[in-house]
Amino acid sequence: MDNDQLKTLIEKIQKGDIGVDAAMEILKRLPFEDIGFARIDHHRCIRNGAPEVIYCEGKTLFQIQEIVRRLATYHPNILATRASHAVYEAIQDTQLPCVYHDMARIVVIQPDDIEKIGQIVVVSAGTSDMPVAEEAAVTAETLGNQVKRLYDVGVAGIHRLLSVWDDLSHANATVVVAGMEGALASVVGGLVSCPVIGVPTSVGYGASFGGIAALLSMLNSCASGVSVVNIDNGFGAGYQASIINHLATRH
Amino acid sequence: MDNDQLKTLIEKIQKGDIGVDAAMEILKRLPFEDIGFARIDHHRCIRNGAPEVIYCEGKTLFQIQEIVRRLATYHPNILATRASHAVYEAIQDTQLPCVYHDMARIVVIQPDDIEKIGQIVVVSAGTSDMPVAEEAAVTAETLGNQVKRLYDVGVAGIHRLLSVWDDLSHANATVVVAGMEGALASVVGGLVSCPVIGVPTSVGYGASFGGIAALLSMLNSCASGVSVVNIDNGFGAGYQASIINHLATRH
Amino acid sequence: MDNDQLKTLIEKIQKGDIGVDAAMEILKRLPFEDIGFARIDHHRCIRNGAPEVIYCEGKTLFQIQEIVRRLATYHPNILATRASHAVYEAIQDTQLPCVYHDMARIVVIQPDDIEKIGQIVVVSAGTSDMPVAEEAAVTAETLGNQVKRLYDVGVAGIHRLLSVWDDLSHANATVVVAGMEGALASVVGGLVSCPVIGVPTSVGYGASFGGIAALLSMLNSCASGVSVVNIDNGFGAGYQASIINHLATRH
Amino acid sequence: MDNDQLKTLIEKIQKGDIGVDAAMEILKRLPFEDIGFARIDHHRCIRNGAPEVIYCEGKTLFQIQEIVRRLATYHPNILATRASHAVYEAIQDTQLPCVYHDMARIVVIQPDDIEKIGQIVVVSAGTSDMPVAEEAAVTAETLGNQVKRLYDVGVAGIHRLLSVWDDLSHANATVVVAGMEGALASVVGGLVSCPVIGVPTSVGYGASFGGIAALLSMLNSCASGVSVVNIDNGFGAGYQASIINHLATRH
Amino acid sequence: MDNDQLKTLIEKIQKGDIGVDAAMEILKRLPFEDIGFARIDHHRCIRNGAPEVIYCEGKTLFQIQEIVRRLATYHPNILATRASHAVYEAIQDTQLPCVYHDMARIVVIQPDDIEKIGQIVVVSAGTSDMPVAEEAAVTAETLGNQVKRLYDVGVAGIHRLLSVWDDLSHANATVVVAGMEGALASVVGGLVSCPVIGVPTSVGYGASFGGIAALLSMLNSCASGVSVVNIDNGFGAGYQASIINHLATRH
Amino acid sequence: MDNDQLKTLIEKIQKGDIGVDAAMEILKRLPFEDIGFARIDHHRCIRNGAPEVIYCEGKTLFQIQEIVRRLATYHPNILATRASHAVYEAIQDTQLPCVYHDMARIVVIQPDDIEKIGQIVVVSAGTSDMPVAEEAAVTAETLGNQVKRLYDVGVAGIHRLLSVWDDLSHANATVVVAGMEGALASVVGGLVSCPVIGVPTSVGYGASFGGIAALLSMLNSCASGVSVVNIDNGFGAGYQASIINHLATRH
Amino acid sequence: MDNDQLKTLIEKIQKGDIGVDAAMEILKRLPFEDIGFARIDHHRCIRNGAPEVIYCEGKTLFQIQEIVRRLATYHPNILATRASHAVYEAIQDTQLPCVYHDMARIVVIQPDDIEKIGQIVVVSAGTSDMPVAEEAAVTAETLGNQVKRLYDVGVAGIHRLLSVWDDLSHANATVVVAGMEGALASVVGGLVSCPVIGVPTSVGYGASFGGIAALLSMLNSCASGVSVVNIDNGFGAGYQASIINHLATRH
Amino acid sequence: MDNDQLKTLIEKIQKGDIGVDAAMEILKRLPFEDIGFARIDHHRCIRNGAPEVIYCEGKTLFQIQEIVRRLATYHPNILATRASHAVYEAIQDTQLPCVYHDMARIVVIQPDDIEKIGQIVVVSAGTSDMPVAEEAAVTAETLGNQVKRLYDVGVAGIHRLLSVWDDLSHANATVVVAGMEGALASVVGGLVSCPVIGVPTSVGYGASFGGIAALLSMLNSCASGVSVVNIDNGFGAGYQASIINHLATRH
Repeated sequence: MDNDQLKTLIEKIQKGDIGVDAAMEILKRLPFEDIGFARIDHHRCIRNGAPEVIYCEGKTLFQIQEIVRRLATYHPNILATRASHAVYEAIQDTQLPCVYHDMARIVVIQPDDIEKIGQIVVVSAGTSDMPVAEEAAVTAETLGNQVKRLYDVGVAGIHRLLSVWDDLSHANATVVVAGMEGALASVVGGLVSCPVIGVPTSVGYGASFGGIAALLSMLNSCASGVSVVNIDNGFGAGYQASIINHLATRH
Repeated sequence: MDNDQLKTLIEKIQKGDIGVDAAMEILKRLPFEDIGFARIDHHRCIRNGAPEVIYCEGKTLFQIQEIVRRLATYHPNILATRASHAVYEAIQDTQLPCVYHDMARIVVIQPDDIEKIGQIVVVSAGTSDMPVAEEAAVTAETLGNQVKRLYDVGVAGIHRLLSVWDDLSHANATVVVAGMEGALASVVGGLVSCPVIGVPTSVGYGASFGGIAALLSMLNSCASGVSVVNIDNGFGAGYQASIINHLATRH
Repeated sequence: MDNDQLKTLIEKIQKGDIGVDAAMEILKRLPFEDIGFARIDHHRCIRNGAPEVIYCEGKTLFQIQEIVRRLATYHPNILATRASHAVYEAIQDTQLPCVYHDMARIVVIQPDDIEKIGQIVVVSAGTSDMPVAEEAAVTAETLGNQVKRLYDVGVAGIHRLLSVWDDLSHANATVVVAGMEGALASVVGGLVSCPVIGVPTSVGYGASFGGIAALLSMLNSCASGVSVVNIDNGFGAGYQASIINHLATRH
Repeated sequence: MDNDQLKTLIEKIQKGDIGVDAAMEILKRLPFEDIGFARIDHHRCIRNGAPEVIYCEGKTLFQIQEIVRRLATYHPNILATRASHAVYEAIQDTQLPCVYHDMARIVVIQPDDIEKIGQIVVVSAGTSDMPVAEEAAVTAETLGNQVKRLYDVGVAGIHRLLSVWDDLSHANATVVVAGMEGALASVVGGLVSCPVIGVPTSVGYGASFGGIAALLSMLNSCASGVSVVNIDNGFGAGYQASIINHLATRH
Repeated sequence: MDNDQLKTLIEKIQKGDIGVDAAMEILKRLPFEDIGFARIDHHRCIRNGAPEVIYCEGKTLFQIQEIVRRLATYHPNILATRASHAVYEAIQDTQLPCVYHDMARIVVIQPDDIEKIGQIVVVSAGTSDMPVAEEAAVTAETLGNQVKRLYDVGVAGIHRLLSVWDDLSHANATVVVAGMEGALASVVGGLVSCPVIGVPTSVGYGASFGGIAALLSMLNSCASGVSVVNIDNGFGAGYQASIINHLATRH
Repeated sequence: MDNDQLKTLIEKIQKGDIGVDAAMEILKRLPFEDIGFARIDHHRCIRNGAPEVIYCEGKTLFQIQEIVRRLATYHPNILATRASHAVYEAIQDTQLPCVYHDMARIVVIQPDDIEKIGQIVVVSAGTSDMPVAEEAAVTAETLGNQVKRLYDVGVAGIHRLLSVWDDLSHANATVVVAGMEGALASVVGGLVSCPVIGVPTSVGYGASFGGIAALLSMLNSCASGVSVVNIDNGFGAGYQASIINHLATRH
Repeated sequence: MDNDQLKTLIEKIQKGDIGVDAAMEILKRLPFEDIGFARIDHHRCIRNGAPEVIYCEGKTLFQIQEIVRRLATYHPNILATRASHAVYEAIQDTQLPCVYHDMARIVVIQPDDIEKIGQIVVVSAGTSDMPVAEEAAVTAETLGNQVKRLYDVGVAGIHRLLSVWDDLSHANATVVVAGMEGALASVVGGLVSCPVIGVPTSVGYGASFGGIAALLSMLNSCASGVSVVNIDNGFGAGYQASIINHLATRH
Repeated sequence: MDNDQLKTLIEKIQKGDIGVDAAMEILKRLPFEDIGFARIDHHRCIRNGAPEVIYCEGKTLFQIQEIVRRLATYHPNILATRASHAVYEAIQDTQLPCVYHDMARIVVIQPDDIEKIGQIVVVSAGTSDMPVAEEAAVTAETLGNQVKRLYDVGVAGIHRLLSVWDDLSHANATVVVAGMEGALASVVGGLVSCPVIGVPTSVGYGASFGGIAALLSMLNSCASGVSVVNIDNGFGAGYQASIINHLATRH
């Protein structure tokens, strides 16, 4: 509930349009729905600009189905991330329309063809980074952004990256997905003038330590406009890129 | 063996009611029972206020059955934690009455309906933290405490937490269960005046490092009344909350 | 601001005793005071049961003086922790009455002789752990608790610990302060029935890694009633012990 | 050198307006100036939208002076970060106009009063986090952004944060600066709809491990729109916030 | 594309032998081939002296087959590393001639009997280190080097190592493969005058931490001529040894 | 080859009883046997006092069989550690007499009833530590030592440990096996006058980090006579205890 | 107090030679002396075979003086370790006879020329490891052992080690002191038949991480008879070597 | 002593030209000189191709002087690394001719103008990396190599690196010195065909963790010909580059 609504509520109380206990109830219960194992945050769309997203890992199929059903009452284009094929099937069983992006491991429930605006670029270093890159790209597309994919442009063959400089220069936000040493974020950060969101991946072995090497590399980037999200968090990067792209193209 | 018993024993020795070697034997053997692979601590109930608890991981089904049988001779409400369904079945095979809390992975052997006093609140951040939260809640209930469960009140929708402030304010002890960044412990710690016991969970991925992020977060809490137990140690938190709740309601 | 105050405020708004904008202001500004570099939480005493504590590290002498002055308008027995002698002198310059506990590195401002109730025991493993143990003990005493100090009872001479078993058994809460391998928390945890709060210290060298060894040891304690605070956080342990001791003796 | 310039150059070569060797030289030497110990990147302003920034740590006073002199030939509002007072004096010795922001440890050389547009909010958790917060704020102001500072609004007194919700909701980008457990980033991330850039600080002790706790906390944020920069990297956060704010207000 | 080719291209542009847009295309597209999920770096052979190598982990069988097909159009002796038996079968399905080295987990596609020059020695500490040692040895042989294998010469029986001193002294480069404490690299480093490339392996348990112990050991080698590659990176060591051996025997 | 043998060899060379090349061969080849993938160290028995031990993890069944066959030509009582049941069956297939200790995961090949001397005590903290404790005990027994097992005497019930003080005081060497917080090593170290060898185990969860907590705890033991071996290295502890016990009882 | 003394005491109680309260007092207070900040363990000599040792770091000069005075009433040859020159001077001020070993940073108080028996060898890898090696050597000498020092025999020049094989073969216990990669412990462990106690040192830089590299290396030693003490813990190694040497030569 | 010398020695023994004990002495004492705290390895020059190098950290000035004096009897161009100005002055006091390279912190004793052959390139990412880069460059020059320095060519301005491609392509070995995210090693590794030796530096702050970020980045390099030395180990990189360059130009 934002400040304006709070003000209106207080005015109503003042005018006697609403009683004390009722006011207390509204203040406490309105923005979410308690279904026992989850409190569904319907208010989030107003507060954060997007409906709640379902992170599927660690939830039972039954829990996912229930949360999907409640959210579907109010919102189109619901994202269910880290969704295995079994999750997809469970969501299909709810009879709600849905689409499965298998490389991205995302189910979009009640997909709605919204306008795709602006430009986000998703760059990945290697073929093995594709699932994370796709998670970012599908997230951004579902949230209404045009997305350009530039995959397998790792720094060990720097000419591959230089050849896509044009595409990079037209983006409002760039998502850089890289495992191993994660150097791509720094090099791209030095080439572009838009914000770069680095996504370290767990691709690698030995001293990559499940993505720590890439994470540290990106956090220590010598390029200035780079920020970082969690290892393999393609969703988070796509989401933040979407916010930035919408800010840049809202007028 | 506590000090009073020691004094009585010494007086018996002095009066000649008991011989030297017998005294030696009593001093050494009384408080536990040696069954080869385990020394069952029957004395623990007097010393610590609760019977020994069986941590099932790493023990064979046969070992668990034997320990259960010995403890059951003396105590009701025996807790077997980290119990898989196979463990539950093995315990059933002993013919002892028992109940299985499957989400909490706890078997209660010789369950006895003791009075539930005071108030403990168990708060969890997300739906995926439920197994650990349930371990805390079932432990506390079995040890004779009233427990209020408040699940899925993570800080990313702070209004969900504020709506349960009432419930929090009536507790003698609060258990906060959270994975990912574990911020809930600090926010709850700032809202209540009772002790807060944080339980970091291994829920998360990438840089959560199996619960390290939540653990460090809770250890560094900027709120003053927060202490922490091991990652996923719902039992330990429920146990300590029980001690505190009993201290607070003993009169 | 607690729930009752919120209710009263809403009733005032309803009766027209207070205007909308004024209500907004109260809701936002009442509980703290903004002095630019700090927002002093005068409300904390009601919410958490104790006034805000000043953690001195990282603050300038000027900032500390200003915060002390504002808090002193409302509260006695203000704690300034991690206070060097220079901090003590700066606080003296405010002309407010104050006492310096140098081993504990604590300044108590406007010390007030409140009743000391119940019983807290502070146990330490070695002579070098004394500064942290004193931080816990002085904190607890200032917050109105009787404190028993039992120092240098490390587990390498277990008879030293057994000789103080009596003292341990009378406590409502035990604070165990230990560096190096931190084993004392487990042994004490096995001897007592009250909550044990472990404080790992940075005492040690080499593979103690500045207290990590003791921290991990305490988090993995095989005794059930042990929770842990941050390395060297004597204040936090004394604070939580105080809450527990007050709960246990409040009637 | 961007693509258009490359095209022009190639056309000149084609027309014979420029010789092969000269072309080679331009391609290699134009965008920077080699002064032995540094290659000054004059081209960066065109490529990244801002002149090169001087990170002062690890450079000698002489090196800093030389780099400042070369950059000053082409650019106003040059930022020298991590600048001790000795660095400030060395820069003053160059006779170039400059201003020292001592809490932010930033020297602005040839300060030029450019228009400040849009809105960036810098939020900090505690008084000790101010130097890093100021580094972010001064960076953003120097790069032409309006900045709102909201300091000492840590989550242990959540009402302090809620009272500034208004200010937060007007920002195009929010920088959240927090040490210890870093929970503020998640809570703010749940309240706003603009991008949140988390800056973990090294404020804390023990298990904060020089900022690791706050860093991991922010990387694992349960709020969706949060990305993170290096520990204590106020500059990087201010810089990225500036890019976003400019994208959002460019029209 | 190397400098000479760049010069030639510029000269062609100058003479009008090639148009602007065509030049742009060549500069961008020539050195690699974009097949959607991968950009195959045909140029690498000229730039780095060897064709691109296929690291199979994290790639689908279909992706591997496509990359193999494209590379096979231009190069013999293509290396596919970390290849399971399933990968081998998928490559066989392309109908291209290939050989599987199962202990080394390497498939060589279009094997061509090139001359084997110079001398590389691959030393391993224990029998369990053989898969990594073989990855180094097969890589080096495929790249045209004579390879001497000296396996199971761990330092706990130093005479086993001394007995092969002769063989060691004839090498142009020595690859030392060792897990556990990795001491072999230092001892060999003290015996030979050629470069030593250490490959820590993940062989070990407990505090070997998946190869960290061996990695740190080799990085801290008290012998001067030792450099190190990633844990289990037999390929990388064999590759660098090949470069050195070719430099040493090129005349 | 020890010094006396070296002297004899040199004297033979001097007298012409042996030629130069033959001498070279003896110096290099005598102490071990090269079977391609392993160099079997027959000399080890003379040098270290015990035949080479086969660590089975990471070796193929075929390799183990071959090594067993060669060692069996010269030695009785060969130890194969970390032996799964499949390894046991493979060794049985060699037709050599052998015994499998399944909890210890040890196969003894050509078991020979040697005299068991002196006294070693193996103490373990919990039932789950038994496999590692048995590895130590069986190793020591096979190497000719009397072994007393004292299991499940963890410090959370300190009276269980005190009751076995008698047994502890008769040992020439004590092996302490403990996971979780590993405190047992310090407490035992404070009770006995013989060397204590600590074996941290990977028993535990969460912040035990696979045995790191116990390892650090033991390394930082406040008791003086404690040294430590690798996590779960029951063999190493049993082996060193055997050396000490034999030194103490050799006369 | 050992078992025999306990038995005697019980018999006295039985005969009425001693009263209940007196018995209680003896049981609790006899073995140590409480001087407020320390409980001096006079009983330790009987229990562990050596008087309590004073670890000086973290203790005030006054505390050290007091502990020294109390111990000196009962024991000769008291060891004060990690003693700076200031500590030495403070001990001199007590007027007790004492000797300072400055490289070892040890003060021996009331030095008494006891017989030095058996043979301990202390081997060090480099000149920089000498302070730790000397701590081990002086400890062992003070406890009545003959000590042979073999310094700077690092594995990068393996012939230096082989030349002292004779000396190594006569030891009852070998202490190996090494920083950097710590490989020396494994090589020595493969050469000798007596117990090897490894002491990793903090000598090194970068990825030696203050001794972690050497510690891990020694814990993972491929030689069987090696156990390890804490980083830089020369005292602990000298102490355990002394126990072993006395066991081996006691007859 | 190499194999040929061993053969000659054995022949002498055979012919009776040398006695048994004398032979033993030669075998043991010849290759080094024992000066108590150090065993100077004069033999190293023959075995490894360069005289022993003095690593000054952790050695006393007296020890350094003594070692310098002994080495100077046999060798020119002795390197003393990690030499403070105080070390330089102490070496000057020996009256031996010497030169101090202060940025590299190297003293060259008895400098001798040997021929500089081949080509080594030392590339550094930032101005702050210069001390480590100079350590590599001066080491290589002293060992007789031509060295090209290319400093401040970090990847955030990739055109700076591309402009020196020519220089890179002429090297026999390239040393890449970089702190922060260390991405330069991968980019250079993709551009050249000679071996690349990466030197991570401790330049950076926060999550650079004293060079760990750069170290991990280089170990995980996606370019194939990259190996790595310890953090800040410019000497080691220069040394190995020298071996490679000499191998490449020896004919």
